[in-house]
Amino acid sequence: MTQRATKLVIITEKVLLRELGQLVQRAGASGYTLTSAGGVGSRNIRSSGQPTVSDTYSNIRIEVITASEELARSIAKQVADRYFANYSGIAYLDEVEVLFAHNL
Amino acid sequence: MTQRATKLVIITEKVLLRELGQLVQRAGASGYTLTSAGGVGSRNIRSSGQPTVSDTYSNIRIEVITASEELARSIAKQVADRYFANYSGIAYLDEVEVLFAHNL
Amino acid sequence: MTQRATKLVIITEKVLLRELGQLVQRAGASGYTLTSAGGVGSRNIRSSGQPTVSDTYSNIRIEVITASEELARSIAKQVADRYFANYSGIAYLDEVEVLFAHNL
Repeated sequence: MTQRATKLVIITEKVLLRELGQLVQRAGASGYTLTSAGGVGSRNIRSSGQPTVSDTYSNIRIEVITASEELARSIAKQVADRYFANYSGIAYLDEVEVLFAHNL
Repeated sequence: MTQRATKLVIITEKVLLRELGQLVQRAGASGYTLTSAGGVGSRNIRSSGQPTVSDTYSNIRIEVITASEELARSIAKQVADRYFANYSGIAYLDEVEVLFAHNL
Repeated sequence: MTQRATKLVIITEKVLLRELGQLVQRAGASGYTLTSAGGVGSRNIRSSGQPTVSDTYSNIRIEVITASEELARSIAKQVADRYFANYSGIAYLDEVEVLFAHNL
């Protein structure tokens, strides 16, 4: 298989890990990939101007590959509507070409 | 230097870490970047519908930047042919613009 | 909000973590995302041809999303000028579409 697909990336606070995973799956994505991430946004800057070690991995990066761009947009909207008023986060799309996929 | 390049991303099971690293290098890539990843694909869903903590980082994400799209496709094909019948995985391509590179 | 944005990715040695974070913020980016990464470039290959476990996470991957492509290029240039003579690293750009962003 080779097909254009949409990659949705959501970077947000780690505390949302379980809820986001469930939301992504309920929305119909076949899977997702998580990485532990740190980051600095307006909310996370310490008075020293440096992230502490514990800040460094207090975020998560969720990557979802969908055959349908519409599904990717729908997942992002659900996440933003539900969480981004109260939690830091960003959601962005990118186009990719899936070459091979097996159960992931 | 500024040049269009191809980014190949392979997300698969961590147990393949060493073999994949060797395959990528033997295939002629000058290097690669690894991150520890978790994920949920059809194979990884627990009866609770939630990944366990140990699941969370049982995958790896390998990113390979190649000047040649053909090389990226060849690496992906070798990986899929050798492993994706027995292991979960996805391989996808994206175009990027490399601005600077030094030994990586 | 939905807008085209530029994603700058810098992969380099972990020892530069704090300095890079400060440089990115001083340059005017509103934030960045860090992940711990391993990798093999020409510098990191051991005589065995395999990365050691400690190599595996001796790099960092910094992702910066900017509304301005010019800012992304400027940050990359500053990083390369200051560090890539002495440290391994790569900097590349990709175009993405930001759907939602809140403090990150």
